[in-house]
Amino acid sequence: MKIYLAGPEVFLPNAREILDEKISLTRVHGFTPVAPGDLTVAPSLSGREKGLAISAHNEALMLSADVIIANLTPYRGLSADVGTVYELGFMCARGCPAYAFTNVTDGLFERTSAWYGGDVREDAQGQQRGTDGLMLENCGFVDNLMLDGGIESRNGAVIRHEASRERLYTDLTAFQACLAIAARQLLS
Amino acid sequence: MKIYLAGPEVFLPNAREILDEKISLTRVHGFTPVAPGDLTVAPSLSGREKGLAISAHNEALMLSADVIIANLTPYRGLSADVGTVYELGFMCARGCPAYAFTNVTDGLFERTSAWYGGDVREDAQGQQRGTDGLMLENCGFVDNLMLDGGIESRNGAVIRHEASRERLYTDLTAFQACLAIAARQLLS
Repeated sequence: MKIYLAGPEVFLPNAREILDEKISLTRVHGFTPVAPGDLTVAPSLSGREKGLAISAHNEALMLSADVIIANLTPYRGLSADVGTVYELGFMCARGCPAYAFTNVTDGLFERTSAWYGGDVREDAQGQQRGTDGLMLENCGFVDNLMLDGGIESRNGAVIRHEASRERLYTDLTAFQACLAIAARQLLS
Repeated sequence: MKIYLAGPEVFLPNAREILDEKISLTRVHGFTPVAPGDLTVAPSLSGREKGLAISAHNEALMLSADVIIANLTPYRGLSADVGTVYELGFMCARGCPAYAFTNVTDGLFERTSAWYGGDVREDAQGQQRGTDGLMLENCGFVDNLMLDGGIESRNGAVIRHEASRERLYTDLTAFQACLAIAARQLLS
């Protein structure tokens, strides 16, 4: 059974090292890893051509996989890396079991409230809104309800872990917890 | 032919008004609109139960649709609303034609460079990196390459428009451009 390893690790200076660690851990738990970031593109390609080649490569990898584990740790802002989120939606649409983890324990509501400096108010309909009028979801989820909902409705799991700031994208404690749950649910 | 209307408009104070405007424009262009945000959930439900109900409802709506138009305008940060992105990945996996628009003309690279205050440097491998070591994609796309790549590989289009700050989420100029392209490609 093949697991697609989605996450922003591909952007790290030591991406290869962390991806290899995830690949190794996936094997230890009895799965076959499918990891993005393996494609070597010709240096002569334009940025656009490179982007399209990597996108096509990753989509082919996803089509070859049976399961997804997505790293939803907030990335350069409030929410998960959108490349990872695209992949999560993609695999959920294919009916694949989906698991996710985040290295930040605060949920979306807490993070968004902090982003507004705590200035969040309830409107006449009982919705929480920021100073710009935009609604805050308050579902107790780690991110937008489509993400958590998509995972939970497929009997998956979303694991939270508080990593140190230095290991925000390299701490694999919660990733391993996802692997253990997936092994119990899918390999027994 | 049914178009799923994905975007962060559901979070606006005047969500109903903007969604109705999008629904109306979709009909004008010869399509049947499928819009999230229509579900009324029982007030007695917990936040988690509401979230799961809305997620299930939106997934059912997507399964009833043939095409997606996604509003990828940056939302509370650098990138698109992750709920919208999940839906884009979901519809792309189903093989549906996909279109997107953004009300900000700067691409992802320009926005991310600005986020780092312009302090972006090339590493030994020729990758652009921020002060935290994280890589910047430099493909000329509006957002992460999985989003633009998924749309372009399905023969879709990504339309950029510079809306005024006040109309960042309510200006439908680029949305209408998507509808016009979709009509030309799918209804003729």
